[in-house]
Amino acid sequence: MKSYLSQYQRYKTVIDKELRRCIVKDEPRSLYDPAKYVLSGGGKRIRPLLVILACQAVGGTTGQAVPAAVAIEILHNFTLVHDDIMDNASSRRGRATVHTRWDTNVAILVGDELVAIAYRELLKTRSSRIARVVDIFTEGVVDVCEGQAYDKDFETRKRVTLDDYLVMIGKKTGKMVSVASEIGAVIGGGSHDEILALKTYGTHIGRAFQIQDDLLDVIANEKEFGKTIGGDIVEGKKTFLLIEAYVRSRGADKKILYSVMTDKGASKKAVAKVKEIYERCGVIELTKKAIAHNIARANARLREIRKSEAREMLFWFSEMLLNRNF
Amino acid sequence: MKSYLSQYQRYKTVIDKELRRCIVKDEPRSLYDPAKYVLSGGGKRIRPLLVILACQAVGGTTGQAVPAAVAIEILHNFTLVHDDIMDNASSRRGRATVHTRWDTNVAILVGDELVAIAYRELLKTRSSRIARVVDIFTEGVVDVCEGQAYDKDFETRKRVTLDDYLVMIGKKTGKMVSVASEIGAVIGGGSHDEILALKTYGTHIGRAFQIQDDLLDVIANEKEFGKTIGGDIVEGKKTFLLIEAYVRSRGADKKILYSVMTDKGASKKAVAKVKEIYERCGVIELTKKAIAHNIARANARLREIRKSEAREMLFWFSEMLLNRNF
Repeated sequence: MKSYLSQYQRYKTVIDKELRRCIVKDEPRSLYDPAKYVLSGGGKRIRPLLVILACQAVGGTTGQAVPAAVAIEILHNFTLVHDDIMDNASSRRGRATVHTRWDTNVAILVGDELVAIAYRELLKTRSSRIARVVDIFTEGVVDVCEGQAYDKDFETRKRVTLDDYLVMIGKKTGKMVSVASEIGAVIGGGSHDEILALKTYGTHIGRAFQIQDDLLDVIANEKEFGKTIGGDIVEGKKTFLLIEAYVRSRGADKKILYSVMTDKGASKKAVAKVKEIYERCGVIELTKKAIAHNIARANARLREIRKSEAREMLFWFSEMLLNRNF
Repeated sequence: MKSYLSQYQRYKTVIDKELRRCIVKDEPRSLYDPAKYVLSGGGKRIRPLLVILACQAVGGTTGQAVPAAVAIEILHNFTLVHDDIMDNASSRRGRATVHTRWDTNVAILVGDELVAIAYRELLKTRSSRIARVVDIFTEGVVDVCEGQAYDKDFETRKRVTLDDYLVMIGKKTGKMVSVASEIGAVIGGGSHDEILALKTYGTHIGRAFQIQDDLLDVIANEKEFGKTIGGDIVEGKKTFLLIEAYVRSRGADKKILYSVMTDKGASKKAVAKVKEIYERCGVIELTKKAIAHNIARANARLREIRKSEAREMLFWFSEMLLNRNF
């Protein structure tokens, strides 16, 4: 398969540039300094990439897609700023979070402002379908909030089933990924079937992405991943692996996993032990299969749309996601 | 002048009903219980009233205006939820604030969700001008955030001029009031001149409203006002009165006002003393004049549009604002 890595880098550069451009004002500095800080913090820019490629895949241009691509990335950054407050996270992408570098009030307000700026960018979209675009986007915001509420709820719930988990990640992570590909297809002038195919592609990609994230917490190379390995275990996060391992384990193993889940996590020392349990009960393999399965389902939807360079790049994107270690 | 009080009550009832209707979901309860709590908390519903009347005043119907009216009220409530966190306010309209009754994380998330729900309601507007409506609304959200940032900045700034103050309230309070009348006029099919007249009416009304709020903190009847009298003085808030009194006072009076401003407020005992200074240097009268002046400017803009029942009710509304003690 042809590598689209350099093409991906080019799109990333476009988005990064747009994100730096979209705040022109300096005053009030207590608002715009941290807002600029957030938008210049880098990231994989996966959502904007999907907007652009979905738009192209149905015959649209990059230019048409850029405002919505930027909007979705800004919205994503808003969720990070507010989630970081709620999670008491002190760093993100190697830098202090907004509420750590400034304070919680600033972080609340900057998040709010980013939502408004996201809508402002979205409204720059030139399309006769703009009302529909804003509609899809707004339902995305609703779902992201619901997903975050479930995620916080799960922290104090003893029992979380795989279905609960899938609903939660479908809203918290998955929805804005499918919104990205759906909006791209709408803006690009896609037919009903094309829009549905690309939206569903996004749904599966989003799910694969989150499950991969859960897996990487256990098996990634710390430096490439950019987060502490085992962080989810230490926090007792009800990940795909923990939920599935708990169902599959017995005896002493089950007891350990129960305590990880209910005592709000484990010590750093216990991480290796939990990882061993995951391997022993086959959950690592199971998780890899779940990711591959979702990628396959995503690709099946892609095959429904006409051949194009953009479609090829979406296949490449699926593949990259499957093998990512960042 | 004919009283439109019962008509106002009727519109309030419509809005209250719509606000209870607009959240259908129950789950996740950690999100929707507090969201419903917020939207059922009452309020003067001034912004939705302006949307409806501005729409009617240019020939539109109440029905056309209701989605946008509801949206603006929801957005207003979002700002209250987040502002209450930032201000450490434990009660509002006689009930515990969200972050007090639940917690800060819940209040952050509920505020975010309310923004999304506001857009969702706004998008129900049936108008060929919907893109413009969403645009105006979004610029309103941007300004509200900027206004709140300035307001928080002022708390720690020693010197705040009247111009600084007017910019701040213009954004924090005034903008969404003018957005209300502007959007109403746009939806109702108003001409360029009508929209501008009604928008500017809202600008002056918004300013009058905030200055009145500052005044009521000093002279209101505590029970009717629903807040503790002198609260702004105790907090050292840089209100219209404090800023103007500081400029006008001399000697010992000026010293006292300086300490109110810079020592983050005054004791409850000192409130009466500050009030005396306000009276002595003529700031109470000055403030009343400023309110009347803004109401007069608002009404002058109203006279530019054609006669109608809605316009009459807007005149009545101006008058009510001028004499309000709640």
